[in-house]
Amino acid sequence: MSYSTSVQELIDQLGRLPGIGPKSAQRVAFHLLKIPTDDALKLAAAITEAKQRVSFCTRCFNLSEGGEECSICRDPRREARILCVVEDSQDIVAIERTKEFRGRYHVLQGAFSPIDGVGVDQLRIKELMSRVGEEDVEEVIVATNPNLEGEATASLLLKFLQPMGVRVSRIASGLPVGGDLEYADELTLGRALEGRKTLAEGEN
Amino acid sequence: MSYSTSVQELIDQLGRLPGIGPKSAQRVAFHLLKIPTDDALKLAAAITEAKQRVSFCTRCFNLSEGGEECSICRDPRREARILCVVEDSQDIVAIERTKEFRGRYHVLQGAFSPIDGVGVDQLRIKELMSRVGEEDVEEVIVATNPNLEGEATASLLLKFLQPMGVRVSRIASGLPVGGDLEYADELTLGRALEGRKTLAEGEN
Repeated sequence: MSYSTSVQELIDQLGRLPGIGPKSAQRVAFHLLKIPTDDALKLAAAITEAKQRVSFCTRCFNLSEGGEECSICRDPRREARILCVVEDSQDIVAIERTKEFRGRYHVLQGAFSPIDGVGVDQLRIKELMSRVGEEDVEEVIVATNPNLEGEATASLLLKFLQPMGVRVSRIASGLPVGGDLEYADELTLGRALEGRKTLAEGEN
Repeated sequence: MSYSTSVQELIDQLGRLPGIGPKSAQRVAFHLLKIPTDDALKLAAAITEAKQRVSFCTRCFNLSEGGEECSICRDPRREARILCVVEDSQDIVAIERTKEFRGRYHVLQGAFSPIDGVGVDQLRIKELMSRVGEEDVEEVIVATNPNLEGEATASLLLKFLQPMGVRVSRIASGLPVGGDLEYADELTLGRALEGRKTLAEGEN
């Protein structure tokens, strides 16, 4: 006996999700079959609903619900002169939580990684350059992840944007706040040393 | 900014699945939002379809598609005199793969674990006893997992079934085939020693 058609289809569809292997897909499928129908259908409805209502912002490619432009691009209080470039929409949520940034965003929808088939054309770089040309952008903060792909993307953006006369900056790398020197990996610690700041009275 | 309503709902629903924490739920949600709508809706459809078509077998509580009884219970070639008791439907698939068992099954839908609120009444033990009484069962093989809950369930079943005059057996515990003595944990190795078999010529 193998699984019946619709159970197998459910396992297959679940197995396509990122981070869900064949065993997890099976466990999740059986969980869905066991729980009350209403609860399982809530997930199906949430997927359908999200796909219907959520699209990508035509300006910054963030997720947008109920409109062509996302809520941040539509907000007139956000400064247009600073643009924060991130890999994914999730990163915007993380940055917004800090309440430190009042500018706008641009979502690349990935990071430069030719080995995975993500080249310049797969990222929203052309659109970023148009924005820098058309909107009144003074500074582009590159907030891609501090890993291999993110750094490569940052170098790439610097190459494209510097000739346009805009200031390009990169978020700082170093020890996480509350972290422990003893347990830091050597790359992070190296970055922390490299990016050291002179302490002087009267400054932060 | 936090997530928009339908994105948050999708993350919440995904986060209810077993083995999917808040971070995974977020990753899966964004994956679903990124992929083509058709692909995402396939998952929604698979859930809806499975919940509509799949029910529990009225006899053995295995999953059943298109019928009150599952395909194994409906199969006249399966021997009724041997009943293999498992915790979940997944276990049936695992046992069927061995092609060693031609009897029928009974799914308890869980294992005895009072601390998790699973007592005798939550398991399909009453139904198992009715079957042993009504069907022509000679042997009940208890194939619950060889862990704390599974062993407790096995003891419990022995207590209930032995007075009914049926033979109750338990699947063997020991070293996995292809395993390595050096890396075996002491409990497994202890079980392997305890369950040792006398080797004699002319026997397997």
